[in-house]
Amino acid sequence: MVDVFGVRLQERIRALGPLCVGIDPSKQLLEAWGREDTIEGLEFFSLAVLEAVIGTAAAIKPQISFFERFGSEGFQVLERLMQDARDADILIVADAKRGDIGSTNEGYADAWLSDRSPLRADALTVSPYLGVGALSPLFETAQATGRGVFVLAATSNPEGRIIQTARTTDNEMIEEVILRSVAELNHRDDGLGSIGVVLGATRDKPQFNLSSLGGPYLVPGVGSQGATADNVARIFERCPQGTVLVNVARAILSAGPERAGLRDSAQRWRDDLSSALL
Amino acid sequence: MVDVFGVRLQERIRALGPLCVGIDPSKQLLEAWGREDTIEGLEFFSLAVLEAVIGTAAAIKPQISFFERFGSEGFQVLERLMQDARDADILIVADAKRGDIGSTNEGYADAWLSDRSPLRADALTVSPYLGVGALSPLFETAQATGRGVFVLAATSNPEGRIIQTARTTDNEMIEEVILRSVAELNHRDDGLGSIGVVLGATRDKPQFNLSSLGGPYLVPGVGSQGATADNVARIFERCPQGTVLVNVARAILSAGPERAGLRDSAQRWRDDLSSALL
Repeated sequence: MVDVFGVRLQERIRALGPLCVGIDPSKQLLEAWGREDTIEGLEFFSLAVLEAVIGTAAAIKPQISFFERFGSEGFQVLERLMQDARDADILIVADAKRGDIGSTNEGYADAWLSDRSPLRADALTVSPYLGVGALSPLFETAQATGRGVFVLAATSNPEGRIIQTARTTDNEMIEEVILRSVAELNHRDDGLGSIGVVLGATRDKPQFNLSSLGGPYLVPGVGSQGATADNVARIFERCPQGTVLVNVARAILSAGPERAGLRDSAQRWRDDLSSALL
Repeated sequence: MVDVFGVRLQERIRALGPLCVGIDPSKQLLEAWGREDTIEGLEFFSLAVLEAVIGTAAAIKPQISFFERFGSEGFQVLERLMQDARDADILIVADAKRGDIGSTNEGYADAWLSDRSPLRADALTVSPYLGVGALSPLFETAQATGRGVFVLAATSNPEGRIIQTARTTDNEMIEEVILRSVAELNHRDDGLGSIGVVLGATRDKPQFNLSSLGGPYLVPGVGSQGATADNVARIFERCPQGTVLVNVARAILSAGPERAGLRDSAQRWRDDLSSALL
């Protein structure tokens, strides 16, 4: 039997360090790499990044919007990238931020978390604007297939604060509702849960006791968005080892297209993050 | 020059009525139609619904998750459906509920709202958990290409209320922040704006003066989710004619697979909604 996502991620972080490399084939980055903004450019970029970070990164995080902009052909490239990542035994976090009412979320669960889908990932990012309760088909499929879900709580961008810090009728902040709800879901099961949370490193420590989540954190905002390895260490200081996965994208990707440059940059970030989070 | 989305939608609703038909090829509905849950079933279902509602519905609203669950092949079917809808001159609202930080939203804008994308729709639903400000690449592309965006404000499901009714530090409800922000964006331009809002019909009238939005409403929750044409009429009573687009999905789709059954059901819903909203 395959281990659950939370356990697999923890083992991977212990072995390789906490680095997740964002695969963001945007128009701007393709241009910076001297590549055309085409399906060929998309494929070249994605596979080059994957190849360069194997053995260094615990996971890759393809940003789905940059594949989706090429329609079905872009998704074909994404499927190829995901298959190559599975073959290389590197974890895949599909950064799609999906989320809808329950019956519609069944479709997203089938797309990203079911065993037979060509888009199956190890974990998926999801957005809770329609309520954490509406996400349950995603949690259930993840649990059934040994995969994971990262629910947005506090994102790395400033525009999100107004919503994420709003208070419910019980005077609880939205980001804390998300953290508490996910913790409750994880503590229903034994062992490290597979429902995680997205918490940006560009912010102060929240009130919520982060070490009690019972699941992993996906941490954006490090590198070109301004946060450092030390910021991450401060926010997550008492969290269990192997539960904090730190995404770095542009700060590594801009070292391409040369594989050696990408690899060196990824290794430096991995080493920095590993020592800060020890 | 092509009219902006807000104007095109208004003309279409005046000519045909306010019905939008949801195209939701879920596992359950394919089964109810006696079809396999395969790519062939997906294509049969989608094209049958489109064909049956041409001339009755102002728009179709394909639910993207049910295509996405088949990966790139599902998106090929979606592209075929969208091309057929364009040929039949029926408006397309892509119900994808996308939303991320600004730089990532550029990818989603290219995917759904740019002239050269195979997935181009007349309008896209988007989710504001990362802030309305982060959605600006989507608004800008929509404005540049004469397309539209519907921002989630108050959804039709009960689980979303806790977030959507939370209050900001200025003591404003999140759903009202969304309505007010969209109204401000629309009133920067002349004429009927193209930035709309999703507001479920399964709820009471909000505090916000809905007739001041300056853009269209997309209204889910009618039919199998429990709301009626009269509920819609009551909530939107003073809104300008042609600005309220009402989605009906399962209540029509379950009349299939026979085209005549689908067509009759769509016509009855259209007539009901038209008289209630007159």
